[in-house]
Amino acid sequence: MQLGKRAVLDKINSPRSLRYLSDAQLEQLCAELREELIEGVSATGGHLASNLGVVELTVALHLVFQSPTDQIVWDVGHQCYTHKLLTGRRHGLEHLRQKGGMAGFPKPSESIHDAFVAGHASTSLSVADGLARGKELLGEEGYVIAVIGDGALTGGLAYEGLNNLARKKDGKVIVVLNDNKMSISKNVGGLTKYLSRLRTTGSYYKLKNITKSALKSVPYMGEGMVEMAGGVLSQMKDVFYRSGFFEDMGYTYMGPVDGHDLTALRDALEQAKTLQRPVLLHVETVKGKGFPQAESNPGAYHGVSKFDPKDPNSPLPSSDSFSDVFGRHLTRLAAQDNRICAVTAAMKYATGLYHFSRRFQGQGRFFDVGIAEAHGVTFCAGLASKGLLPVFAVYSSFLQRGYDQLIHDCSIYPQHVVLAIDRAGLVGEDGETHQGVFDCAYLSSIPGTSIYAPATYGELQLCLEEALYRQKGLCAVRYPRGAQPVLEPAYQADCTDFHLLGPRKGKTLLVTYGRLYGEVSQAHKALTQQGEEVSLLKLTRIWPLETQALEIAGGFDRVFFLEEGIRWGGIGEHFALALMERDYGGRVFLRAIDNRFVPQGTVEEQLEMVGLNAASIVKMVIESGKKGESL
Amino acid sequence: MQLGKRAVLDKINSPRSLRYLSDAQLEQLCAELREELIEGVSATGGHLASNLGVVELTVALHLVFQSPTDQIVWDVGHQCYTHKLLTGRRHGLEHLRQKGGMAGFPKPSESIHDAFVAGHASTSLSVADGLARGKELLGEEGYVIAVIGDGALTGGLAYEGLNNLARKKDGKVIVVLNDNKMSISKNVGGLTKYLSRLRTTGSYYKLKNITKSALKSVPYMGEGMVEMAGGVLSQMKDVFYRSGFFEDMGYTYMGPVDGHDLTALRDALEQAKTLQRPVLLHVETVKGKGFPQAESNPGAYHGVSKFDPKDPNSPLPSSDSFSDVFGRHLTRLAAQDNRICAVTAAMKYATGLYHFSRRFQGQGRFFDVGIAEAHGVTFCAGLASKGLLPVFAVYSSFLQRGYDQLIHDCSIYPQHVVLAIDRAGLVGEDGETHQGVFDCAYLSSIPGTSIYAPATYGELQLCLEEALYRQKGLCAVRYPRGAQPVLEPAYQADCTDFHLLGPRKGKTLLVTYGRLYGEVSQAHKALTQQGEEVSLLKLTRIWPLETQALEIAGGFDRVFFLEEGIRWGGIGEHFALALMERDYGGRVFLRAIDNRFVPQGTVEEQLEMVGLNAASIVKMVIESGKKGESL
Repeated sequence: MQLGKRAVLDKINSPRSLRYLSDAQLEQLCAELREELIEGVSATGGHLASNLGVVELTVALHLVFQSPTDQIVWDVGHQCYTHKLLTGRRHGLEHLRQKGGMAGFPKPSESIHDAFVAGHASTSLSVADGLARGKELLGEEGYVIAVIGDGALTGGLAYEGLNNLARKKDGKVIVVLNDNKMSISKNVGGLTKYLSRLRTTGSYYKLKNITKSALKSVPYMGEGMVEMAGGVLSQMKDVFYRSGFFEDMGYTYMGPVDGHDLTALRDALEQAKTLQRPVLLHVETVKGKGFPQAESNPGAYHGVSKFDPKDPNSPLPSSDSFSDVFGRHLTRLAAQDNRICAVTAAMKYATGLYHFSRRFQGQGRFFDVGIAEAHGVTFCAGLASKGLLPVFAVYSSFLQRGYDQLIHDCSIYPQHVVLAIDRAGLVGEDGETHQGVFDCAYLSSIPGTSIYAPATYGELQLCLEEALYRQKGLCAVRYPRGAQPVLEPAYQADCTDFHLLGPRKGKTLLVTYGRLYGEVSQAHKALTQQGEEVSLLKLTRIWPLETQALEIAGGFDRVFFLEEGIRWGGIGEHFALALMERDYGGRVFLRAIDNRFVPQGTVEEQLEMVGLNAASIVKMVIESGKKGESL
Repeated sequence: MQLGKRAVLDKINSPRSLRYLSDAQLEQLCAELREELIEGVSATGGHLASNLGVVELTVALHLVFQSPTDQIVWDVGHQCYTHKLLTGRRHGLEHLRQKGGMAGFPKPSESIHDAFVAGHASTSLSVADGLARGKELLGEEGYVIAVIGDGALTGGLAYEGLNNLARKKDGKVIVVLNDNKMSISKNVGGLTKYLSRLRTTGSYYKLKNITKSALKSVPYMGEGMVEMAGGVLSQMKDVFYRSGFFEDMGYTYMGPVDGHDLTALRDALEQAKTLQRPVLLHVETVKGKGFPQAESNPGAYHGVSKFDPKDPNSPLPSSDSFSDVFGRHLTRLAAQDNRICAVTAAMKYATGLYHFSRRFQGQGRFFDVGIAEAHGVTFCAGLASKGLLPVFAVYSSFLQRGYDQLIHDCSIYPQHVVLAIDRAGLVGEDGETHQGVFDCAYLSSIPGTSIYAPATYGELQLCLEEALYRQKGLCAVRYPRGAQPVLEPAYQADCTDFHLLGPRKGKTLLVTYGRLYGEVSQAHKALTQQGEEVSLLKLTRIWPLETQALEIAGGFDRVFFLEEGIRWGGIGEHFALALMERDYGGRVFLRAIDNRFVPQGTVEEQLEMVGLNAASIVKMVIESGKKGESL
């Protein structure tokens, strides 16, 4: 891909360059940034709608503040593309989210302008608190600016951060609330209603009414006219909407400001700098701004695969995915059983619960709790204690937010809560922060938990039924992002326990579970074709371990356990220990993701990085056979 | 212990009995409940000050609501003693928090009146949301009442719950904010300031001014005078303080009410029942109410050991504890290095950070973030990214709340954050919810993490220095509640790596770490005296595994790994796997806490329950020698 030429953008090498542009050039720059984003993201895939929404806001931030002396913390980080384009990474757009290319999230190792990692939501205020306190203790110059979406503000961590950051009295911290009304589904509780009320009934912040000369008289502007400052601040105060929530928390509330009016944004940010206390600046933006099909359907253009920007029907949501199969099957089951409820943390579409919500929201059986995974878990425990059958559909890496609640609220006094863990295993382009590789480790250490790892759509359906009707306590069904692996007929064997392919005893056994079964099947076929005597044991219920599966493994000289998950604490380790305790006399080779985070790339590339693609598995088996050594 | 006779309390067999008491008798009851609490808790130990604070509130709740049809959710649960006394468990006070006795927290298995488990803070609103939605879906009668402390309200989970619970429109949910101004340290951010403002400047809720007859006319009261309702509600409205925060979240705010005025409480709760929308009732209570030494020093009487109620100097805080040694040593180190900062989540005293705070709060190096462990972790990551040396002192079981933040904010882009993990291992009387048995499992699965488990005060100091100055990334130093184990001179060997006692090769090796070294030392001595040839390997740095320690273990026929932590994902399992991968030909016996939660008791009793006291270890070694079989 070769991105087009842009008259103004081509001249921007660093944020400092922005200061030499006229108002007209800045307007032109914003238009060019949008062209660049649409051209770039349509070619690589990525987050589009949110980035189109913050073009003016990002330009204004870099005009008013001096990164990296001033540190900008994005929350959630997928709205950082314009920031990256303006901070010397324009070339990176060509390989956005690809192996070795630019990340789709802020990444400190990529640029000094990326203040902090930000793949999970609601972190910015806590990070900003740490950065600001650090600056203060070190006597370091500069502001800290947290840019947080209205969706991210529904997370408990954001509230904890808001509460603590309010103590930072010197006014060197500014919270920008990027309110695009879209990041979460409707009716997500008190906060959403409150923001909506601010937008519709609040007196708008019209800084233009304050003369530019008055602004210049503020001490920070360098004119030294201290006696004027009080007057200006008092004038300002009249145009602030008196916001209960934020002001009660200790912030000076400013807003709402039109997030696509560059002049208003600059003025508001300049003003925020002069206040000697924490400020919350409420900015209204339109997700997908400037790209009609994204504006009218921001959900579809939130995270996209490659698409044709000239075709308004592109991108189409894929119906060939585990998420979709899950959503449809749960809806079918729920039609037969009105105890079934479904819960999502702001992921109705991505988790496939759209089908369910359409059918059962009216009955009060569908709940979108906002970006609040911890609440999602405890809420399910409450529902379960009443005898309902709650299913929490959640990404593996985001469920990490509910770890304590899984222990404390679901397991100590066991509640039958079903976790539908989506994006389990490697996730591809989103990289380190989104890899779903810890759930098997943290769930299997919680007493009384069961885990299923279906490898196919058919198995997902069977496992879901088993989790709902033949299990107790906390029960997880985990499945990967995207589609089921392509399996040859010989390898198709849907089950909820385990399946053995090949003789029950022999020299070599491959053991695996979940999507990785696709790669291991290929490896098995290749090894068999090379004349190796290899059996393949596929686990579906992966925890607790199946005694019969262990017995089978005991009949082989060598057991290779292949796991698309973290090694220490994973299922493979448990399997090895259990074999050892059964006095297994052979050798166990465990290959999993070992003490590392896996960077962005395609899933295929990532499997190769960690030695879990079919070719690597074949190589491991052959070489270990030759050398008779540990791997 | 035999509790004294009480004229009124003796007649209370269930909450229903309360309704037959006169106002004078109810007043007498409250006095007797206080006597009972002081007499009972001074004999067994437990939470005292918080329970003395909610006597009237609990009586009022049980007068106005009908448990268990109406469900009361306590948050945090240690304020439930009066509730237990009134719900048929008065006899339980004699064995409070003892093995087999009554729990110090709500426990559904103990009584139908305990709606939900509640050992960790901030869960009540999410639980109440689940219970209320469940009731609605099942067409079940009754209210759900969440009683949440001002401390618990600083937790992000409470905010997520508050936000979601606001959607429950039918008024069947009542949030009682038990504001005792004491549960958290001062200056904990925006919320604390806000509550303080409500208390001092808010117009007080004086329901007495509203005539009783007007109250009776509200439809819910059964008089059917619907036309009056509007008038009464409007009259009520004038006495509500218009609270920005809570009202913005969607609640009708009532308060503050004097939490020791039983009549005012009853009236307020009755009124809250009649409103057709979510209510937040702000109740002011005094922690330790009615017991002078507890009122004047509620911190010391929050959680107490046995004490003499007649001696105002009892209980004295113990200075013989890992917490205290940690706090003092960190203070010493920080005096030499101004990069060191300390962070606590509302546990300044219990974690020993009191020393540090006195010395460094003025320098802005001490931070109490409230009950907000997730924020604590991310905040530390922010500080570390600026080059400071943050130390987060936190209980093992509460750090579970920051699991995702440990991965996302501390490890993906590694930040040098030191975790001082207190209450690691079994904790005794607090039981299941507080056991610090998961940290080794969840930390060791996070790439790049180091873990130290000192067994003595001397080692704690060495490990803290090593964590600060000779480690990178996320580094944990974990130590138990209470004092160091008593060790004979032969077993004293402070180190930061590992220590071998006995020959380097032989038949039997015991391996352990942390406080359990005390028990294993005793077992080692007993076995040696019985003529067994046993060596003892004590690990101090437990993760990553020490290669030399593995090499030593490889020289023995049998390795017994003893671990005071969860088995699956624990250090013992990692050690066993590592041995297996080194082609260890002997046998490994791993004894840890296996797939269970450990109930209350003394630590000694708990070690016996899980087979980890010295006698059990001796027995295991002897019997495995006889039979040559797996355990």
